[in-house]
Amino acid sequence: MAAIDELRGRLAELSDLAGLGSLASWDQQVMMPRAGAPARAHQLAALERLAHELATADELGDWLAQIEGTSERLSDLDRDIVRIARRDYDRRRCVSAELAGELAQAASAGQSAWREAREASDFAAFAPALRRNVELAREYAACFSDAPRAYDALLDDYDFGVPTERIQALFSELADGLAPLFTELPQTQLLGAIAVPIEAQKAAVSATLKRVGVSDDRWRVDVSPHPFSDSLSRGDLRITTRYSDEGVESLIAALHEFGHSLYEAQIAPELERTNLGHGTSMSVHESQSKLWENHVARSPAFAPVLCEELGRGGYSIGAGELSAAVNQICPSLIRVSADQITYPLHIILRFELELGLIEGDLDVDDLPGAWNDGMRRLLGIEVPEDRLGVLQDIHWAAGLFGYFPSYAVGCLIAAQLWQQIETELGPQDAVLRNADVGGIREWLGERVHRYGRRLDTEPLVEQATGSGLDVQPFLAHARALAGAA
Amino acid sequence: MAAIDELRGRLAELSDLAGLGSLASWDQQVMMPRAGAPARAHQLAALERLAHELATADELGDWLAQIEGTSERLSDLDRDIVRIARRDYDRRRCVSAELAGELAQAASAGQSAWREAREASDFAAFAPALRRNVELAREYAACFSDAPRAYDALLDDYDFGVPTERIQALFSELADGLAPLFTELPQTQLLGAIAVPIEAQKAAVSATLKRVGVSDDRWRVDVSPHPFSDSLSRGDLRITTRYSDEGVESLIAALHEFGHSLYEAQIAPELERTNLGHGTSMSVHESQSKLWENHVARSPAFAPVLCEELGRGGYSIGAGELSAAVNQICPSLIRVSADQITYPLHIILRFELELGLIEGDLDVDDLPGAWNDGMRRLLGIEVPEDRLGVLQDIHWAAGLFGYFPSYAVGCLIAAQLWQQIETELGPQDAVLRNADVGGIREWLGERVHRYGRRLDTEPLVEQATGSGLDVQPFLAHARALAGAA
Repeated sequence: MAAIDELRGRLAELSDLAGLGSLASWDQQVMMPRAGAPARAHQLAALERLAHELATADELGDWLAQIEGTSERLSDLDRDIVRIARRDYDRRRCVSAELAGELAQAASAGQSAWREAREASDFAAFAPALRRNVELAREYAACFSDAPRAYDALLDDYDFGVPTERIQALFSELADGLAPLFTELPQTQLLGAIAVPIEAQKAAVSATLKRVGVSDDRWRVDVSPHPFSDSLSRGDLRITTRYSDEGVESLIAALHEFGHSLYEAQIAPELERTNLGHGTSMSVHESQSKLWENHVARSPAFAPVLCEELGRGGYSIGAGELSAAVNQICPSLIRVSADQITYPLHIILRFELELGLIEGDLDVDDLPGAWNDGMRRLLGIEVPEDRLGVLQDIHWAAGLFGYFPSYAVGCLIAAQLWQQIETELGPQDAVLRNADVGGIREWLGERVHRYGRRLDTEPLVEQATGSGLDVQPFLAHARALAGAA
Repeated sequence: MAAIDELRGRLAELSDLAGLGSLASWDQQVMMPRAGAPARAHQLAALERLAHELATADELGDWLAQIEGTSERLSDLDRDIVRIARRDYDRRRCVSAELAGELAQAASAGQSAWREAREASDFAAFAPALRRNVELAREYAACFSDAPRAYDALLDDYDFGVPTERIQALFSELADGLAPLFTELPQTQLLGAIAVPIEAQKAAVSATLKRVGVSDDRWRVDVSPHPFSDSLSRGDLRITTRYSDEGVESLIAALHEFGHSLYEAQIAPELERTNLGHGTSMSVHESQSKLWENHVARSPAFAPVLCEELGRGGYSIGAGELSAAVNQICPSLIRVSADQITYPLHIILRFELELGLIEGDLDVDDLPGAWNDGMRRLLGIEVPEDRLGVLQDIHWAAGLFGYFPSYAVGCLIAAQLWQQIETELGPQDAVLRNADVGGIREWLGERVHRYGRRLDTEPLVEQATGSGLDVQPFLAHARALAGAA
């Protein structure tokens, strides 16, 4: 068999195993009885180990070398497949099996320690486990000798090719632009949370998703403690949401997760079972969820659709009131419930701190103080206890450094794409009022989704919008929000 | 690492992969959106291929040879692990990868051909695909040169160590004993099916399962087109049932599947993630489902429990009427809806015919005629069309030869075990009337379940009941049923 066929066979196998891993993890969060956890951990570990062996095997390197060494002309698709396969292979082979094992173990121990420490709001109890994760992340970064700086190596796992300096420049402009928007807001009384019966929310979630394009033959919509999306294949798209009787987070979260899964659903069919058949990066993925969350679900123009479907479910509310409720702006302590304007500042804080941890200026013991200082500087609020501050997120406990920036970069890209959609397709308010979003789906499919991993973050954004990563469209969106508030 | 540890590591890995395969197959039948099917087929095939490679790898043979070659004393458990690992390894290595591929392909093609042929009641359209499956099953059987006859080799896949002659003797005695029981029945009017609202059935399924031992932390109960059970691990037990508004098949099927899963749930914890951590054979597995179906769910003594729970669900029926409805005896065309007395005769017919196909007396073209003759001889009824006769089951289309006997042998073992339970624990009528089945569960756990694969079918039955496979307890049960009818 030709080396390219061997390579494609192996990549297909790896894609199949990744699909099984997605299934096992989805099931664990949505379906599995509690007592199934120990066996599931073994099953996932076995899958991980086998996939790692297959992805780093010597023969895969031999096939790549053979393909790269011949003058035979490959198709454009095969060239991209080989290019990304080479990148992934080299990155994986940089890391020893020992280090990979230590990372996994420290991440597991870190999460346990974090759960207890957060419960007790006791950072000191968490510090040793965090220190271990920081040390290992530095060791991991050092494996990539061609990365200009340590944090670049970490970023590459989530957003290949976006350097630390680029993030710093974007975030600096972003923080400067956002600060006046909420500090100058009139001190209006915050609205009370609206109380929406869960049955009405459930009816509205199901009906609204149907209107934006969710069909039973390809999608599942379930409930889980933390909303997430998982695409097992292009024809097997699964999203979850959660219900509380205050507010309509269920609807916002469902549309957010829809954005993630729609991306996977619209990747070109010929990329299926290759190494290119998934979203290209964390920030582009987040841009897709944020586009549907910030620019559709929370848009005043879309509020009548939500009201209509809540009404059919038996809960009556006016579009103005609903829109005001889902767009309140107010600096607050917790990232995941932050409003659209202050949300990126939470991310900027985490980026600054993890950069300090990884590149050496910041000691773990000084982290809570640095956190609290940052919250004062960026958001103007005091942190009463670490549980509501430095202990709120699981990421660092799980060894995830370099991941946070994608949440804010995703907001930026979403605004860039939305601006481009309105430039090319015209203002979308009328479209949103009828949930007539076929044109938006199609534009995203054509300009973003179909490429899979063929284009990295910044080239993809350039291709879709004509310019690279840009803070201004998000700032314009934020100014409009602040003006309306 | 010592060879025994290497071996146990590999067996644990194979067990983990088998758990993932169970999950993928459960999900496909219960949760997966329709359009996920093509990718799921690839995922299952990849898993199958990897597991096959790991299970037949040369190093596994080396470890076995090293262990067998040393004089070091193994624990009893390790001795059983090695003994069964050797057996499985040798059996898998007998079959070439080519033949395994051809078998899988013919089974897949056979099922497609069967679906169309059954729809059209057109046996001739199915015959070529069936012929191919028969030929390959013969070829497969011929791989096992130490099997005294071809059909023995096939039986060994489902019930290791039960030879063809043993099945023939049991089935001959069984057919002779059953014949007078239904031919001599008074020609009573059959009861009409009872109409039970599905909501009442759902409430009763849930409540009844809870009373016999199903708890949320280890079990899931779902709905699927064909009821089945799947144990992903000892702590992750999943059963399904189905609902129709005629009769209470939902309840009977749920208790049947409960029997299968309870077996897996009560295997000794130290067998988990070894090659011994599953039910030992098809017929012992079926004995567990049939025990809960025939001797609990359908027992007149248990009828008050079902009535009580249906009543709480809003449907009122007397125990006598319910018991009569689930125990009607009448020869009929379709195996899966046959009554307890005539059911084994459907199996005997299939056994006779597949033995003829595999060992050469019966040609595929003569199968429909032989089927119809057999139905006349064994059950005294005429088959109006092949759809209701030779085309009703999927097994042969899927290349499953040697599987059918376990359905009837399971009924025999269930009756033997039930008789032994009543001998040791006393009559169980009062126990069943209160669904107070903890003692039955415990007895089964102690005498049957905990052994996993450590004992094969007949040794296990001997260990539990003091005698080998025996037709008389089932005949006594059948006579009691016929007497009551």
